[in-house]
Amino acid sequence: MHTVSEALKAVLDHVPAPVSQRIPLIESPGRVLLEAIVVAEDVPAFSKALMDGFAISVDDATGSGSVNSPTGMQRLRVVESIVAGRVPSRHLKSLEAMQIMTGAPIPQNCSCVVPVERVQIDQADSGWVDVPRSQMIPDANVLAAGAIARKGQRLLEVGTCLQPARIGAIGELGIAEVVVSRRPTVSILSTGNELVPIGVLPGPGQIRNSSQPMLAAQVMTAGGIPQLLGISEDDTGQLGQKIQEGLRADVFVLTGGVSAGILDLVPEQLALAGVVTVFHGVLMKPGKPIWFGVYRTDSHTCLVFGLPGNPVSSLACFELFVKPALWRLQGLPDLEPGVAVLSERCQVRGDRPVYQPVILRQETGTIMARPVSWSNSADLLATVMANGFARMEPEHGVYEAGEIVEVLPWDRRSCCQ
Amino acid sequence: MHTVSEALKAVLDHVPAPVSQRIPLIESPGRVLLEAIVVAEDVPAFSKALMDGFAISVDDATGSGSVNSPTGMQRLRVVESIVAGRVPSRHLKSLEAMQIMTGAPIPQNCSCVVPVERVQIDQADSGWVDVPRSQMIPDANVLAAGAIARKGQRLLEVGTCLQPARIGAIGELGIAEVVVSRRPTVSILSTGNELVPIGVLPGPGQIRNSSQPMLAAQVMTAGGIPQLLGISEDDTGQLGQKIQEGLRADVFVLTGGVSAGILDLVPEQLALAGVVTVFHGVLMKPGKPIWFGVYRTDSHTCLVFGLPGNPVSSLACFELFVKPALWRLQGLPDLEPGVAVLSERCQVRGDRPVYQPVILRQETGTIMARPVSWSNSADLLATVMANGFARMEPEHGVYEAGEIVEVLPWDRRSCCQ
Repeated sequence: MHTVSEALKAVLDHVPAPVSQRIPLIESPGRVLLEAIVVAEDVPAFSKALMDGFAISVDDATGSGSVNSPTGMQRLRVVESIVAGRVPSRHLKSLEAMQIMTGAPIPQNCSCVVPVERVQIDQADSGWVDVPRSQMIPDANVLAAGAIARKGQRLLEVGTCLQPARIGAIGELGIAEVVVSRRPTVSILSTGNELVPIGVLPGPGQIRNSSQPMLAAQVMTAGGIPQLLGISEDDTGQLGQKIQEGLRADVFVLTGGVSAGILDLVPEQLALAGVVTVFHGVLMKPGKPIWFGVYRTDSHTCLVFGLPGNPVSSLACFELFVKPALWRLQGLPDLEPGVAVLSERCQVRGDRPVYQPVILRQETGTIMARPVSWSNSADLLATVMANGFARMEPEHGVYEAGEIVEVLPWDRRSCCQ
Repeated sequence: MHTVSEALKAVLDHVPAPVSQRIPLIESPGRVLLEAIVVAEDVPAFSKALMDGFAISVDDATGSGSVNSPTGMQRLRVVESIVAGRVPSRHLKSLEAMQIMTGAPIPQNCSCVVPVERVQIDQADSGWVDVPRSQMIPDANVLAAGAIARKGQRLLEVGTCLQPARIGAIGELGIAEVVVSRRPTVSILSTGNELVPIGVLPGPGQIRNSSQPMLAAQVMTAGGIPQLLGISEDDTGQLGQKIQEGLRADVFVLTGGVSAGILDLVPEQLALAGVVTVFHGVLMKPGKPIWFGVYRTDSHTCLVFGLPGNPVSSLACFELFVKPALWRLQGLPDLEPGVAVLSERCQVRGDRPVYQPVILRQETGTIMARPVSWSNSADLLATVMANGFARMEPEHGVYEAGEIVEVLPWDRRSCCQ
């Protein structure tokens, strides 16, 4: 039987290349670049003021200056006012200044902007301003053309997920459309005679189909588009028909019917539909009966995951195998597990690595993991305060508080990267 | 002038109570509960098998047993097969077993399920099974009715954000609709004569309206619904009209026009529209000119934020003030800043606290913050690899590598909680 890392490698080896699409920048939050963002022109395109104040030439600080300047000041003639969105009509001459607003282009021969609060405007004649020589510093409060980015520079590489600051930066470069990966579709089918829809009162021996909304939410968190196929009974005809539907998506997730029980028809029916088995069973707890296969036609590949029916098992199998596949399908770099410090003692039972639901919290810069009390793989209610799994090795036996463990936070999502 | 924490308190004091709405569970990912989830019936409703195997009574382990049992084994008569979704037709009698599937209800008098791989089924007559006495352990592989949750128990409190495991747990309780907060609407208006839409080539002195898609993405990350109002020139007529439109949303974010420049008309025009000023200016860098006010009618409150026009300033002001307001509007608990360890030396200049863009990374369980080289508040391109702000105090001067700093990660979102 495969280990978790062998199984994950087998899954990732079968993920097809992401499919690209061009979309408006405004619709791009959370999407992943499939074409790099390259700077097409210098940024800023023109040298500009970083403060409201007066555009001057530092050359005027030396020399005798005009008469009537107070001590340490240089009197300059205000010849123009440049507001943002306007350009200076001419260049600065000796002993001239122009009033300028933040963001406005500086005139030629300007080498400094002196903030408005540092100067004295002549009360009697606003055509003159007194500027302290100590403020006449070369390049002060001026942003030179090309200082932020140079033409041809690669700003964002392929595989980058678009979050707000990046979207703003792309907008600044004048790029109104981006080439990103198509969001993968994920069909979800629950199998089992015992299942009833959530709104229906279960009869004796029946349980509610709670995995459907849970998996749909997991798909959304991972950047995919869920397609709900509802419930199939353990009946070859009904199951075969739903499988045909499910195989049209990029990823097909089934729950139930993959153990060794009498009514576990899923692997057999998937094989009949042309899905090629890659593995069945992984050394882990919960989730051991997981099945994975691939369906290929000339024009389409569908990755097929048969997850165990118990809710915590399907939660774990999704995080461990389906989410990494969805990340790679979107062109994101592979997810690496994190680590955390156990906040209390924890004992591993059995002979398989255990994925223990934990509450991950940051405490003064350290990530702590607190195991939740969890009775079995059907016990989803115990996990409501958890937000990750910690991997516990069976040969380790007892873990003491303070030991470091490998963790998989559930809330990792494409645009957090 | 307000400090950041005084200003944040003033904002939060003006946030109205969240508005509730009832939605289908399947549409609830990322939404926030405004009614607690209470357990309506014991979970599970019936005692059930946790493994595929044989339902037996441990009482049969003692006593002489039937003839023909191998050493250490107890031969039992298989009287029924209970598949999931079916109920046992009768109770177990002495020296009887029933074959049972995972999830199926156990029969009366059953006190243990022995896994199928531990027993020997009689090859000659499948009506008999040999069960090791060592496996006949009280309550083994049985989940008792009510063991997971008891009727009346509060599973999830008001203010909880719905992530996949919680949605699955709510589904298990048979709750198909949940009462959550309405997502707040946020109108976004960029002001300034110098702005052109992103797809348009800026003329001399013009810049692109990159803050619009950036702020829209920030609104989405924070759980709100962005409404784009485009650009208004610095013209009282046009601005006044756009302000009327913007005030219909729950939150109205304007950029530009809040400094002390000649064309900074925003505070005046907002006042004319009936918005009451709460504060103007906060001791921080970038973002000092931020303006905040409230617009109230009998039936509606709109929180109005005038952000500085420079992109990193508006990014910072959104994270510091708008996002916390959106969280409270959704009924989420207030955001607390995190901490991280500085990975390199960093010097603070000036007399205001600096919100320095940093790259936050986890390294063996510790959160490290690496400052990005960042020239000024117009320099959004420098921030593309950053994912948070670190707050640096001016009186601290030089921060050495290894010092602990307060951080605001940008990717915090409602459903990560």
